[in-house]
Amino acid sequence: MPLDPLKNIRVILCETQHPGNIGSAARAMKTMGLSELYLVKPHLFPDKQADWMATNAVDVLRNARVCADLDTALSGVVLAAACTARSRDIAVPAVSAREAAAQLVAAARTQPVALVFGNEVSGLSTEQVKRCQMVTMIPADASHNSLNLAAAVQVYAYECRMHATDATVPNKARELASHEALEGFYEHLEQELIATGFLSTKVPQRLMQRLRRLFSRTQLDAEEVRILRGIVRTLREPKNRN
Amino acid sequence: MPLDPLKNIRVILCETQHPGNIGSAARAMKTMGLSELYLVKPHLFPDKQADWMATNAVDVLRNARVCADLDTALSGVVLAAACTARSRDIAVPAVSAREAAAQLVAAARTQPVALVFGNEVSGLSTEQVKRCQMVTMIPADASHNSLNLAAAVQVYAYECRMHATDATVPNKARELASHEALEGFYEHLEQELIATGFLSTKVPQRLMQRLRRLFSRTQLDAEEVRILRGIVRTLREPKNRN
Repeated sequence: MPLDPLKNIRVILCETQHPGNIGSAARAMKTMGLSELYLVKPHLFPDKQADWMATNAVDVLRNARVCADLDTALSGVVLAAACTARSRDIAVPAVSAREAAAQLVAAARTQPVALVFGNEVSGLSTEQVKRCQMVTMIPADASHNSLNLAAAVQVYAYECRMHATDATVPNKARELASHEALEGFYEHLEQELIATGFLSTKVPQRLMQRLRRLFSRTQLDAEEVRILRGIVRTLREPKNRN
Repeated sequence: MPLDPLKNIRVILCETQHPGNIGSAARAMKTMGLSELYLVKPHLFPDKQADWMATNAVDVLRNARVCADLDTALSGVVLAAACTARSRDIAVPAVSAREAAAQLVAAARTQPVALVFGNEVSGLSTEQVKRCQMVTMIPADASHNSLNLAAAVQVYAYECRMHATDATVPNKARELASHEALEGFYEHLEQELIATGFLSTKVPQRLMQRLRRLFSRTQLDAEEVRILRGIVRTLREPKNRN
């Protein structure tokens, strides 16, 4: 059982016309941690234009498997999603890209699954859709629902990654200010505002409450509290007057 | 107040190098219902390559506004998100594309907001990021986090659309089978399975329970129940033997 379900998700491109789209799709996959590319009867592959559009994802192209038909590409797959932009006559309700990705990732934790894309002009044939267990669509504008092939791959790969990972953004850990540091700051500020007559000694609480809310929303870190206290101190006792 | 927040979301592309990327971005926008494109110092625009890549979204290009600087493009905007692939020194925590889209759409219900993208090589400058109220990233693979510009626009536009609409897929309404129809089918099936000896009359329940679960998962519609009953009936009493 692989630890990373993304490695168990195949992207199968059927009869792609433009090699540049194969390259763009490979790049889209790699940005999201996918690497298993299958090409069913590509019009032109390998090709310089594909390499060019793949940029740093040329390795995905090098490892791509070219297949004579969809059945070969689906070999070993337990759940295949037909990615389409059209409602179809067949009686399979389409699920959204988000829902499809959830189901695929769940299955991919133990067994291979696939996202299947048709060619740029006509999409998937009814025969190809029949080979899949699920039909899925990206919710799009009704009057202009035709995403570029690589753009569609990007959205599905992104949704798979969002489901497979905790999908957090790598932020540097911030050393948030402690309760004591914050209270020290508020006390300092209040004293100075009273001392300067900005606050009345009788009813300082209302404005202090607003200031607390303001700073609370920003989640001050320790260094920021030191900076703010330095500003208050310096405004009260300018250094250049010493 | 516009009814559609997507019309209040500007996509601002800064110093784009390749006109083809402007066209691809326009197409990505239009598929998701966005139309407000602003170009800050584009390298080459208008351009045939942009028109070519835009396909049916040439109208978005025609209505695009070319601006001399980012401040001009941000005029009137109440919330701008800097879309970046890099962690930055500046002390602004990045939010995910999904979270950024949620905040942008919420604000866009009443006032203009913006997604701001840098150029293909160096992204947004620190000066440009400073002009924005939010920094956002698409959660991507650590070793290969550089999405194509139009692919990034596609993901953000998609997330905005998912937040702005109910994001459902247009499925034909299915007339699901009624309780009575389902029970009639199960009863019919059980009788025939007992009659044929497939089920023992003593303990038929276990297998029937599995069959119920199987059919329940598929959410049979009324027509499908009629078809299934027809199959059972025909298997028992073949028409061509009459």
